[in-house]
Amino acid sequence: MGQVVMGQAEAFSDKLIALVGRQNVLLPGDDQEPYLVDWRGRYRGEAAAVVRPGSTEEVSRVVRLSYEAGVAIVPQGGNTGLCGAAIPSGDRPSIVVRLDRMRRIRAVSPLANTITVEAGCVLADIQAAAEAADRYFPLSLGAEGSCQIGGNIGTNAGGTAVLRYGPTRELVLGLEAVLPDGRIFNGLRALRKDNTGYDLKQLFIGAEGTLGIVTAAVLKLFARPRASALALVMLEGVAPALDLMGLLRGEVGDRIGSLEIMSRGQIQAIAETVPDTAIPFPLDAPWYLIVELTDTLAGVDLRLGLEAALGTALERGLVTDALIASSEAQAKAIWKVRHSVSEGNKRSGFVVSHDSAVPLDRQAAFVEGVERRILAAVPHARVVMHGHIGDGNIHVIALIDPARAADPAEAARMVRLINEAVDDETKAQTGAISAEHGIGQSNRARLARVTDPLELDLMRAIKGVLDPAGLMNPGKVFEPAAPAPRQ
Amino acid sequence: MGQVVMGQAEAFSDKLIALVGRQNVLLPGDDQEPYLVDWRGRYRGEAAAVVRPGSTEEVSRVVRLSYEAGVAIVPQGGNTGLCGAAIPSGDRPSIVVRLDRMRRIRAVSPLANTITVEAGCVLADIQAAAEAADRYFPLSLGAEGSCQIGGNIGTNAGGTAVLRYGPTRELVLGLEAVLPDGRIFNGLRALRKDNTGYDLKQLFIGAEGTLGIVTAAVLKLFARPRASALALVMLEGVAPALDLMGLLRGEVGDRIGSLEIMSRGQIQAIAETVPDTAIPFPLDAPWYLIVELTDTLAGVDLRLGLEAALGTALERGLVTDALIASSEAQAKAIWKVRHSVSEGNKRSGFVVSHDSAVPLDRQAAFVEGVERRILAAVPHARVVMHGHIGDGNIHVIALIDPARAADPAEAARMVRLINEAVDDETKAQTGAISAEHGIGQSNRARLARVTDPLELDLMRAIKGVLDPAGLMNPGKVFEPAAPAPRQ
Repeated sequence: MGQVVMGQAEAFSDKLIALVGRQNVLLPGDDQEPYLVDWRGRYRGEAAAVVRPGSTEEVSRVVRLSYEAGVAIVPQGGNTGLCGAAIPSGDRPSIVVRLDRMRRIRAVSPLANTITVEAGCVLADIQAAAEAADRYFPLSLGAEGSCQIGGNIGTNAGGTAVLRYGPTRELVLGLEAVLPDGRIFNGLRALRKDNTGYDLKQLFIGAEGTLGIVTAAVLKLFARPRASALALVMLEGVAPALDLMGLLRGEVGDRIGSLEIMSRGQIQAIAETVPDTAIPFPLDAPWYLIVELTDTLAGVDLRLGLEAALGTALERGLVTDALIASSEAQAKAIWKVRHSVSEGNKRSGFVVSHDSAVPLDRQAAFVEGVERRILAAVPHARVVMHGHIGDGNIHVIALIDPARAADPAEAARMVRLINEAVDDETKAQTGAISAEHGIGQSNRARLARVTDPLELDLMRAIKGVLDPAGLMNPGKVFEPAAPAPRQ
Repeated sequence: MGQVVMGQAEAFSDKLIALVGRQNVLLPGDDQEPYLVDWRGRYRGEAAAVVRPGSTEEVSRVVRLSYEAGVAIVPQGGNTGLCGAAIPSGDRPSIVVRLDRMRRIRAVSPLANTITVEAGCVLADIQAAAEAADRYFPLSLGAEGSCQIGGNIGTNAGGTAVLRYGPTRELVLGLEAVLPDGRIFNGLRALRKDNTGYDLKQLFIGAEGTLGIVTAAVLKLFARPRASALALVMLEGVAPALDLMGLLRGEVGDRIGSLEIMSRGQIQAIAETVPDTAIPFPLDAPWYLIVELTDTLAGVDLRLGLEAALGTALERGLVTDALIASSEAQAKAIWKVRHSVSEGNKRSGFVVSHDSAVPLDRQAAFVEGVERRILAAVPHARVVMHGHIGDGNIHVIALIDPARAADPAEAARMVRLINEAVDDETKAQTGAISAEHGIGQSNRARLARVTDPLELDLMRAIKGVLDPAGLMNPGKVFEPAAPAPRQ
């Protein structure tokens, strides 16, 4: 990591302190630690300062100051990301800009079905504010108690409600962002239709903070789901799970809320290592599917359609057994298993996890092909899977005996082989190597390996024109082109 | 209009003919007329050639040839646009590139709910192909029998199903496009989740052909609506219409398919001038709202919820009268009125029409403010309105006695005054001056007047990096920055 040259550094930090106050600037020597290490402990960076501006104008002034000083800027939300995108990684002095203090919900309109929030709002607080207005904000993911909406937007977060409501990109109506030179993009519009030129807000969604800092957003709200029904279904493979999805569509139309699949090995890993998670069903099938139906009307009985579809599926041999939750408690116990996958995998060995998406009708071929390729490359790997089968997003996880991964060089070799196996199969099935986690630092080299060079050229060209000095979250998503000379 | 210098022109057209065949090149002297005038007859251009490539590779070669010759390129779909975006307007030699020959539906996947189409496919043909696979493609608009999907994507078309399914942008999963230098962007992915860097396809959606030519797309399909109920509701204003929308949400959740409002003056204009459109209800209320509910299950009785909401609305005085369609024929007669608005307005005088969107909860203030401003500027104007009230998109139309608009200078003066009145009120209500029609040539000066200069800067910067020579549909959306020197 580069360091700000002594003297210059003091002048720079003094200016930061003048902008936002001493209590909102953590300098080297202060407790910067929580903001320089990602939550999985895989990435560590250095920062000339961790800065907590309190308003969009303060963000703008901090960015402008850094721009003029040639200091890189790393925007950070709740620091819950999986790919190291919020941790400094560049070869030049950096500051981390945290949005915590900007956590105001500016407006809720139940009539317009919109909520206007600052970037530092915690996702769960937005969900609660929507609910208080008898509305529903569907974005939902494991880290919702601490992740911030600015980070969700910057990474185009996915989660368990994408099948019905789309990824974060589709939930954003308007955005406010600070550009790399400190100018403020005022795109905070609450419009469902707007064809006045290029849709500039799209640039900032999913760009992982490389084109600017999201400071506020107008988000879509929806009618609350008021009825639901849930089943756990046992099946022989992914193909019959997709056939069941087709049957369900015929019976219940667009009421499918979640379709979450887990391989037997995935559930076994949980059963073996997470003692407080009971598995409330026998483990005698190779695949398990959680089906959740929802409706926005309370009076609708969704169990009827669910039973009809499952009955037909049993008759046709698509399904070997099925359990319809008869109580809220039973439904929660089933979801508990799904929510324990990360914990179970972490406790089961050295984890190499993936986040591929493929077209829905390629998923069956993908799961077979990817397991074959991984085992050919690393025969002792234990391959388990879980995923959002209605979105084509299957997480493939290779679990390695920790003893075999003790040597860092050997561990790195296995990671490389497994990554290549998964990436090659994903590419063969016309998929994407990151469905929802993003690129950050982790997947930059993998992206460069599988992506059409023309697409990387276009990304770099856009980066170059918005951030010619290359100061906004450098080293993330892709290797930069040679930076333009600063003026 | 500039002309290709004689000699050069012949060499250029010979090369075009060599690429796509003589029968697919219309030269000056051939019947270029249908492709050089927009369908409302407001814009006329000139073209060195109208070219009809038959494949993505041919589009690429044609674009490359034009790029090297410094000839501008105007992509044209069905030529049904309202803002002159598909007609040459630049100050340099141009070719029009039509996509008619690329009208293959490449694939339909009912399982993945996707359809892969070439840019020249007519929208109605895509709707039919979806229906043949027991699926639904929701994009629907007046020109659907002749508009092409490439144009729909290039203009981010809206229409009558946006409330439930979103604008075209939200219906596109993947895109293929030819860049201004002829390179092919292969973004034809059928993925619902893809976080592998910047979402480049967004650049081409709604850019009106200024950043490249869309040649193919993967589109989302949906479960077919199988049940519906329709009512025509009479009300005193826009505010009670929005209150009724709230009541409906409580009764039927997310089953609202369309909410189309018309002012009494709008319906009167139809009644006076379109003899084959019967008005099957009395004209004694100031506002009329078409409410259509839909469900993806055939067995659902939507009339119950509709009656309950309308009953409550009548009790509360939100609604003065309501007519629930008792047959398909009656529903069609009501929709016929809505579909006659353009015809009725055209026959009622000199038309100055607008396409504003405002936040939903600002619509009542907007309709009052905009009428007041127009009448203050042009007291004899007849102001009528119709629109998609669930999307915040109200079309404000000023009808002028043709005798008063006979003098072109006086007509231009009135148009300017009315545009300014509408644009100022739209801006005051934090809206957008174009919700769905786009900018093209018509609205370029208006956009420049109301838009934050920073946004225009960003648009020009992106244009500059993708199309440094400024050859791709020049003169549309915004005034270009000074073109970079060609190498």
